[in-house]
Amino acid sequence: MLPKPRHLMSLADLSAPEIKRLIAHSFALKHYSKPWADPPIGNVIKQNSGSTPLLPFQSLLGKTVALLFSKRSTRTRLAAETSLALLGGRGLFLGREDIQMGVNETVRDTAHIISGMCQGIMARVGEHEEIEELAKYADIPVINGLSSLWHPTQILADILTLHENASAFTHSHKPRSLAKAETAQPSPTLPELPPLTVAYIGDSANVLHDMLVTYPRLGHTLRVASPRQYRAPKEVWDRVWGLGCDERIEWVEDPKEALKGANVVYTDTWISMGQEAEKEERLRAFKGYQVTEALCKEGGADPNWIFLHCLPRKPHEVDDEVFFGPRSLVFPQAANRKWTTMAVFDLMVGHWKIDIPKAKAGFQE
Amino acid sequence: MLPKPRHLMSLADLSAPEIKRLIAHSFALKHYSKPWADPPIGNVIKQNSGSTPLLPFQSLLGKTVALLFSKRSTRTRLAAETSLALLGGRGLFLGREDIQMGVNETVRDTAHIISGMCQGIMARVGEHEEIEELAKYADIPVINGLSSLWHPTQILADILTLHENASAFTHSHKPRSLAKAETAQPSPTLPELPPLTVAYIGDSANVLHDMLVTYPRLGHTLRVASPRQYRAPKEVWDRVWGLGCDERIEWVEDPKEALKGANVVYTDTWISMGQEAEKEERLRAFKGYQVTEALCKEGGADPNWIFLHCLPRKPHEVDDEVFFGPRSLVFPQAANRKWTTMAVFDLMVGHWKIDIPKAKAGFQE
Amino acid sequence: MLPKPRHLMSLADLSAPEIKRLIAHSFALKHYSKPWADPPIGNVIKQNSGSTPLLPFQSLLGKTVALLFSKRSTRTRLAAETSLALLGGRGLFLGREDIQMGVNETVRDTAHIISGMCQGIMARVGEHEEIEELAKYADIPVINGLSSLWHPTQILADILTLHENASAFTHSHKPRSLAKAETAQPSPTLPELPPLTVAYIGDSANVLHDMLVTYPRLGHTLRVASPRQYRAPKEVWDRVWGLGCDERIEWVEDPKEALKGANVVYTDTWISMGQEAEKEERLRAFKGYQVTEALCKEGGADPNWIFLHCLPRKPHEVDDEVFFGPRSLVFPQAANRKWTTMAVFDLMVGHWKIDIPKAKAGFQE
Repeated sequence: MLPKPRHLMSLADLSAPEIKRLIAHSFALKHYSKPWADPPIGNVIKQNSGSTPLLPFQSLLGKTVALLFSKRSTRTRLAAETSLALLGGRGLFLGREDIQMGVNETVRDTAHIISGMCQGIMARVGEHEEIEELAKYADIPVINGLSSLWHPTQILADILTLHENASAFTHSHKPRSLAKAETAQPSPTLPELPPLTVAYIGDSANVLHDMLVTYPRLGHTLRVASPRQYRAPKEVWDRVWGLGCDERIEWVEDPKEALKGANVVYTDTWISMGQEAEKEERLRAFKGYQVTEALCKEGGADPNWIFLHCLPRKPHEVDDEVFFGPRSLVFPQAANRKWTTMAVFDLMVGHWKIDIPKAKAGFQE
Repeated sequence: MLPKPRHLMSLADLSAPEIKRLIAHSFALKHYSKPWADPPIGNVIKQNSGSTPLLPFQSLLGKTVALLFSKRSTRTRLAAETSLALLGGRGLFLGREDIQMGVNETVRDTAHIISGMCQGIMARVGEHEEIEELAKYADIPVINGLSSLWHPTQILADILTLHENASAFTHSHKPRSLAKAETAQPSPTLPELPPLTVAYIGDSANVLHDMLVTYPRLGHTLRVASPRQYRAPKEVWDRVWGLGCDERIEWVEDPKEALKGANVVYTDTWISMGQEAEKEERLRAFKGYQVTEALCKEGGADPNWIFLHCLPRKPHEVDDEVFFGPRSLVFPQAANRKWTTMAVFDLMVGHWKIDIPKAKAGFQE
Repeated sequence: MLPKPRHLMSLADLSAPEIKRLIAHSFALKHYSKPWADPPIGNVIKQNSGSTPLLPFQSLLGKTVALLFSKRSTRTRLAAETSLALLGGRGLFLGREDIQMGVNETVRDTAHIISGMCQGIMARVGEHEEIEELAKYADIPVINGLSSLWHPTQILADILTLHENASAFTHSHKPRSLAKAETAQPSPTLPELPPLTVAYIGDSANVLHDMLVTYPRLGHTLRVASPRQYRAPKEVWDRVWGLGCDERIEWVEDPKEALKGANVVYTDTWISMGQEAEKEERLRAFKGYQVTEALCKEGGADPNWIFLHCLPRKPHEVDDEVFFGPRSLVFPQAANRKWTTMAVFDLMVGHWKIDIPKAKAGFQE
């Protein structure tokens, strides 16, 4: 009788040391694999690694991860498929039109079928209950690639990006070179982060939910500005309270209040996939929430504040000056989706174990 | 000038020894590859194989099989893509919306084009004529992944499942442990099957058609209960008669009659993809056909009868007690779609030969 | 700071020696890889290569090329995915329904995101501006897989096909054996082509546009018959003039005039994807343009003329006698899409360099 697999529905499912372990493994995989993935230009390779690049340990060779995506996806899907390719595995994309699940067949039966042929599942579903049902009946690890409630793989990428740019928070730096220099040549040791103040300005949705159950446990403070009607539902708060995260979370209505002393300013779209009908109502509710240099200055953000966004972005929520400016880490952050997803697949699907001995990872961390 | 490839439109195209050879090869591939595909948990691997798991012979390395699927598919597609991954090959899924075939381009031209770039085709089409047309013009092997008339890869998986559970028919056994124990640790020798009585209760469709041309040739008796208006069409009967299979087939209208002495009870959905409009009429015609413990007892099935279903399943045709109960082998049966499809690809696409010497298969059978 | 990649929007972007280099590399890759890809039948393999077939150098191992296709595709997609498989890489197909680009996200942002996770992009777009926008912001090579203006990978395959069949133009030959014999056993030296007269009979669209900027530079003469209203737009002529190609291009309205002395007769569909509404008007405009033996004889084509077509084909533009006849190289031409696309991926994505030293290609050219 095989043991039950470990699923990833939300980062609330992981302990703080496990989250740190995943970040460290992401950083190690990136440092090891980037020279292989980067353009094959002599001097660039030499500069990064000092020697011939090598493929990472092929923990998913000959193995298949089913990608059950019932909604459009760019980052999550690219991250999944490209990282599986680097691990020797296969991503089997199954869209809404492809399989019988929910049309001709129950989620329960589908979970059994996929478990009999694949080694893992990443699912992007509508209602969160659907992925819980999948996980309940699957004999293989199920990874949440976005649900109505949670988005765990996004927050892993955000935290890796903050670590890589730790110098932005610890000493004065030249912001203009930030995005390129710090991420192009990751150093072999993951930089430590000081306790940060993270201001989240916007809709309380899946991305914020996973931040709520994670940042406080890593020693950071979350300041959330969100209109009263768009705050996290009870099932999220239950997890927040259960993990003792509420002590480092402040909730306000005025974005300026949230920005005071903020090291990181984060926003998300106000109109998620499927909410297009509420567009006008939402634009009204979020009036004054657009992230701009002026707003952050007025709110008293730390002068070195950096900007994150989970994308896709609409100009409502952040203007071009910030989004394409030197404070913005949005594209390195998006690229880190690949390395953190790779770590999740490698450890949870390839090894069935988050805390593997470092030597087993196939390369020196 | 290259020789013409061998296609698989129906198991009627294969001799009985060839069918047995495919089953034996499926079993060998499963026994060899399962430790690799199973969760990487030390003691489980040791238990199964006694040593480090190895990949099977990569007969499709660098090669591509086009998967032309004009209908939804879960099992057939997962089986194809996951088994190709294990053989080093690539499944190139082409749905109805992807290519020009039937929209801007003839089947004939498409067959030539695919033959020039791929090494094999698996097709799930509507009318059976369409796959015959593909096969007529293709220079590479074409495998039928379900047509209006036949479903050969399903029946291979069914027979492998019966062999693996041969002990259910040969001595008294504890049914509760059946599904798990027998399939989790396949022994290296394929168990022999005694002559069985297989009761098929339901619609006469593609799955049954391939049973009709196969089971009798392997020494088994088929008892089919199907309403008079839903019986196999003439082209199927022609193949049945041509292969001398009719002597071991009985056709009745009352499901209870079919169940007498049955070792295996098999059913399929009554409303296939595309038949949704006839739903009410069909539910009426199949009244009394639902497989239940009571029906099988009344009909006089063998006390150790086991249950098979090609899936997807609707509760009309079998109740939860049977479907999720200890007699049901439906999920191991579905998982065997992978290993039998792998054997078809390995032998017919990878080697262009069903009867390869065992040593050539790259591992000891 | 990484250098900017080289993109392929049109063959006008490449010098004549670079085009020749790509053709030579395609031929070498085909000669080297075909024994691996061909059916595994002892005597066939021996006949072609004299030894065990080998995989080509795996320049894209563990790497992913995003295939952004907003329109149906058969040849371009099969060529991309099957050649990537042979190079060890992964094609990540993203259709119109899959990603956010153009729906929820700008082309610019999407270009950044894909650049952060993939190693190359092949795009089939509607308006040509869209792929130019992608290329503008991408940090990885972008290959045009068909746009409203250009179709560079098609013309590479056409030219390879002409080279392989050079004997058709240099001495008397038996046309019936042409298509099979010359392409099944490519000799290790790419045959030279004499200066040819190529008659293009049909719509002035993307395929012709890339012919206009290419054939003259390789020493061939283009004779185009196209109704006055369907001639190439200004941006194409600017490139033609800029490259000095206009001297070897003649433009007429009567197809017979174009055929005089033609060694090659080429046509394309008159009604491309998206032009279905103009069908009747176009059929009227192209009256008399159908390629037939009679038309070519009347027009005075070279008695050994051969026929090419980029496909998909409708009978309007060429009758069955020519299309399926001994002069037609359309299916070998389509199969060559694979080898030329493979060369583009290998050199431009795998090596970031068209003119690599031959030894670096991993095999003796």
